[in-house]
Amino acid sequence: MNDAYIVGVDMIKFGRFPEKTVPEIGAESALLALDDCGLTIQDMQALYCGNLGQASAMVGQRLLQQIGQTGIPVVNVSNACATGATAFREAWASVKAGLYDCVLAVGVEQMGKGLLGGSGGATGISKEGLLGSGTMPAVFAEAGMEHTNLYGTTFEQFAKVSVKNHHHSTMNPKAMYQIETPLDTVMNSEMISYPNTKLMCSVNVDGSAAAVICSEEKAKELGLMKRAVKVRASVLTSDPWQERDLVMPDVNSCTRKASAEAYEMAGLGPDEIDLVELHDCFATAEILHYENLGLCEKGEAGKLIDDGEVELGGRIPVNVSGGLLSKGHPLGATGIANIYEVTTHLRGEAGQRQVEGARIGMTHVIGLGSACGIHILEKT
Amino acid sequence: MNDAYIVGVDMIKFGRFPEKTVPEIGAESALLALDDCGLTIQDMQALYCGNLGQASAMVGQRLLQQIGQTGIPVVNVSNACATGATAFREAWASVKAGLYDCVLAVGVEQMGKGLLGGSGGATGISKEGLLGSGTMPAVFAEAGMEHTNLYGTTFEQFAKVSVKNHHHSTMNPKAMYQIETPLDTVMNSEMISYPNTKLMCSVNVDGSAAAVICSEEKAKELGLMKRAVKVRASVLTSDPWQERDLVMPDVNSCTRKASAEAYEMAGLGPDEIDLVELHDCFATAEILHYENLGLCEKGEAGKLIDDGEVELGGRIPVNVSGGLLSKGHPLGATGIANIYEVTTHLRGEAGQRQVEGARIGMTHVIGLGSACGIHILEKT
Repeated sequence: MNDAYIVGVDMIKFGRFPEKTVPEIGAESALLALDDCGLTIQDMQALYCGNLGQASAMVGQRLLQQIGQTGIPVVNVSNACATGATAFREAWASVKAGLYDCVLAVGVEQMGKGLLGGSGGATGISKEGLLGSGTMPAVFAEAGMEHTNLYGTTFEQFAKVSVKNHHHSTMNPKAMYQIETPLDTVMNSEMISYPNTKLMCSVNVDGSAAAVICSEEKAKELGLMKRAVKVRASVLTSDPWQERDLVMPDVNSCTRKASAEAYEMAGLGPDEIDLVELHDCFATAEILHYENLGLCEKGEAGKLIDDGEVELGGRIPVNVSGGLLSKGHPLGATGIANIYEVTTHLRGEAGQRQVEGARIGMTHVIGLGSACGIHILEKT
Repeated sequence: MNDAYIVGVDMIKFGRFPEKTVPEIGAESALLALDDCGLTIQDMQALYCGNLGQASAMVGQRLLQQIGQTGIPVVNVSNACATGATAFREAWASVKAGLYDCVLAVGVEQMGKGLLGGSGGATGISKEGLLGSGTMPAVFAEAGMEHTNLYGTTFEQFAKVSVKNHHHSTMNPKAMYQIETPLDTVMNSEMISYPNTKLMCSVNVDGSAAAVICSEEKAKELGLMKRAVKVRASVLTSDPWQERDLVMPDVNSCTRKASAEAYEMAGLGPDEIDLVELHDCFATAEILHYENLGLCEKGEAGKLIDDGEVELGGRIPVNVSGGLLSKGHPLGATGIANIYEVTTHLRGEAGQRQVEGARIGMTHVIGLGSACGIHILEKT
């Protein structure tokens, strides 16, 4: 199989853009990613577009109406919060298949107000679907409490996740917020569903992110290997209905299955990972995923945050972008925004928040219902 | 690149199933396709699911809840009327990429009443999207009239398409209707938008179709090569904004680009095609696509239908399944239902409607907005 490389990647600063259309928001990051590697839409042989809110409405094709209708294949994908990661993975697979040697992946979302879309959020989500249930704060709260019951994880430990991620975001100009939130501020903000306060819930924002993926041969031909990042593993799983936790079984077992497969595909273990962008849709989720991704042993997640190991400068920095809690969580864009963040570190271009010496990084997203996408990326 | 083969394929009899859910309708064809090759969901390494009406609602994962949650990757795709073909193509690409050697593609749709969904049709279609505009009968009528203005194509010639496809459907037990419609019946049925009468518009039905795709090595290992069909070409295009017709430029130029690419990928020309399942969403569309697919010269489409060349028994039978006009058009399922039809003929299993000696067949779908999917399949 061909190796596939990320040669261009970028995201827009997340925010709220009610005056724009979804394709317009997506086109902005597409142009940024193309500009990042000095290519144009004429160089792209296919477009893989991830969007949730208008999943049936040809978002990819309408995006091309903004930046150039070259007649290339457009594949519109949707996979809950793993939508962007799925679009990226289909793009990657097309290069692996030898179908194309240079393709574009875009993730985009225009969110409504409220928590994670809720019932008044993104349009087009079926009542039958899981995303409109409005129960996400409750189920992620329950999952956190299960961890508390099993391992004694404290409210303060959960809250520290938010303090850390908000601190990280002060160094990320593309994050929605760049504001320090001290521990007492986090713990005393409005209680949404115990133990998650308002500052422990991800931020509803509009956004997009995009990546240009090339075969090794093409990247070399274009002289783009210097800043290229290799995709060592790309994994997607659904709920395996096994090793079931009491609550959120899909989120947990789905992630554990995906991380095991990703480490196997990359031929490495968690010890070799230098930074992780994981799915902190709620502070409680980040705690669970430390263990699901093998960053620590079962039951050790509280200690990991207490010891500062997951902070910038620590053993394994997590969500140095600010994460979904402060950078924001535009559902369909998040998967590729994570890939942008890790790539930027592997290139040594992350400025003030740079993870020094980063060589290998991991991205993780999980969509309820369920889909877990994990990518392991390596500096070339 | 690995060669990829269809080893199992089937569809449900199209109909109206308001009492069922979308995943239930999809699961039925998935089980039929698995049964067709004697495999189970445990043998599948990934699922590619195409659906339009609930594109954001994890239809693939919910389908697995019906037939077995094995934790495999699920990719949900949407591409207007090319949705099923896109799901099939992503499945095919995953095998070409060497990611998997046995995968499942499913297309499913539960339609509302009325013409092609219209504004009261499938749920979840954004108002911004092109599918809710309700103008399809009008634009396909205009496209037909453009052909009339350029080449003198007659109302009777357009109507003959419907007579032919309804006749074919009398031999297809899985078609929604199996009723002869004589020429005067077609021409005198309710006028929807001249020159398309009601019997010249595709039938709104619920349905699903599924295919199992294997690598050559895996198909041999499983002893499935005898009934296997090789995918010679798989092409997807979007509107290339070139060679523009006065009306429906996307449908026409998109199809012409796709067919040129498909013939090149397969290394053959229209003369070598033994049967075609093309996108007769309206009778006028079938006339346009005879030329777009190179089955005849420009302006010769009327003559092609007059001379009976596209009938069963003719030079190049088109829509022997009954087509969208009589078999029915469940949007997300149509692309894979076409693949089922052609595969069935290449296997010599099409019974009364068998195209004798069929060795190579073509499927074509076109979604407004736009996406054209073409597959060329070959008997092994």
